[in-house]
Amino acid sequence: MVKNRGKISIIGAGNVATAFARALHNRGYSILKIISRSGKSASGLASLCGSESGSDYIIPNGTELVIISVPDHELPEVTLQIKAGNDVMVVHTAGSFGTDVFPDNRNYRCGVLYPLQTFSKGRDPGLEKVPLFVEAESPPDLDYLIQVASTLSDRVLVVDIETRRRLHLAAVFASNFVNHMLSSAETIIAESDIDFDVFEPLVRETLEKAFRLGPSESQTGPAVRNDLNTIEKHLDLLSFSHQLREVYITVTESIIKKHSR
Amino acid sequence: MVKNRGKISIIGAGNVATAFARALHNRGYSILKIISRSGKSASGLASLCGSESGSDYIIPNGTELVIISVPDHELPEVTLQIKAGNDVMVVHTAGSFGTDVFPDNRNYRCGVLYPLQTFSKGRDPGLEKVPLFVEAESPPDLDYLIQVASTLSDRVLVVDIETRRRLHLAAVFASNFVNHMLSSAETIIAESDIDFDVFEPLVRETLEKAFRLGPSESQTGPAVRNDLNTIEKHLDLLSFSHQLREVYITVTESIIKKHSR
Repeated sequence: MVKNRGKISIIGAGNVATAFARALHNRGYSILKIISRSGKSASGLASLCGSESGSDYIIPNGTELVIISVPDHELPEVTLQIKAGNDVMVVHTAGSFGTDVFPDNRNYRCGVLYPLQTFSKGRDPGLEKVPLFVEAESPPDLDYLIQVASTLSDRVLVVDIETRRRLHLAAVFASNFVNHMLSSAETIIAESDIDFDVFEPLVRETLEKAFRLGPSESQTGPAVRNDLNTIEKHLDLLSFSHQLREVYITVTESIIKKHSR
Repeated sequence: MVKNRGKISIIGAGNVATAFARALHNRGYSILKIISRSGKSASGLASLCGSESGSDYIIPNGTELVIISVPDHELPEVTLQIKAGNDVMVVHTAGSFGTDVFPDNRNYRCGVLYPLQTFSKGRDPGLEKVPLFVEAESPPDLDYLIQVASTLSDRVLVVDIETRRRLHLAAVFASNFVNHMLSSAETIIAESDIDFDVFEPLVRETLEKAFRLGPSESQTGPAVRNDLNTIEKHLDLLSFSHQLREVYITVTESIIKKHSR
């Protein structure tokens, strides 16, 4: 039997909001309300968590924590809509916003709960191993947020806004840009009758090496060897795509400069 | 008891040569000789395989197959050194060379055995799941090469030189460039006291999505959303490194162009 922990409301019903709502519900928190702009997507998620749903921003009595997981550009507007007293703490999950996104004339307390993960529809990455980066304006609020976050993940870290912005930027390289490199590989072999999944053992081993030996130590390939002959051949092959050629040149130069120091 | 399969000699004693020598030895092939330029690195590997070693290119009598795994730039010179008759087949493991790297006046038969994997010192990725791409000049030679390769890997594919060159280029994106993206993430957080391994769950999930949903479908991040506000903030943060800024701009443009079609 999971013990009854605390009362939480959630604003947003997308991939991140869903991951938090489900994990908190499973850990014994009462999810009082799921709020989304249309109200539609909220009701599906609410039924999973036994909570009410709505499109207004009225926070139910008894809510101790509000988690906002909405698209970045909606965040400033949403924080203005919330009416809650100082018995309520409100956190957002955005990597690149600080606590200054909350309005000056608010009554509620505030903070940040940033998960370093990529969330997509139809995938549940689980929060247990996902690093959660927390921030709050007062030490008691920070203690409270650490306590909640620790029930969700094995890895809770306190960071300032500057560090979190760097984490968010680094995550773009480690996830979005990594994915685009894989997407580019898929484009390059698209004309052949080879399946993209032939690359899976290679990419898995690349990742194992990067996390075991460190990515700088495990760099291989023509760029780090400064093998201009192979680089020239590759640029010839890429003549079909200006975009991929530019990516090849820029990344190759970056590898050469990094490793020639 | 592993059956005695055939007699093989290997030129090279680096990471790729070692992976092939060990796997073939374990599958019951007799490794007759390991040849390396200095002879030194060959003797260590030879002792693991119960074979002789040497720095000359004399192929022992009875050798049916010679596998050359040397650095790309040494390959043309090595193929000239080999003295062997047409009872011997010689293959190289290079992704970006064809069979035209073998000299016209050779007596031996020739082909290619290209493993789509990254090999590093101290790591044994195993060949069972590694796609092996084979090529030979005559159908009987191709049959023979497929037969040998199939004892090493579950996945043996016959490709022409054009396709293999594309595979090799695509592998640079999927492995070397992916690794450099991870290396760049490490650089970005280097000044903070965050360990690089916080990115491991994110990168693993990115990879799972790419191979389950396809990398084009699973692209996320500010570029694919055309979120210029976040992109501007990231470029400000990257003012400390001209190289990383160039990589960010070029990859972001490539993602935007690809997904705005």
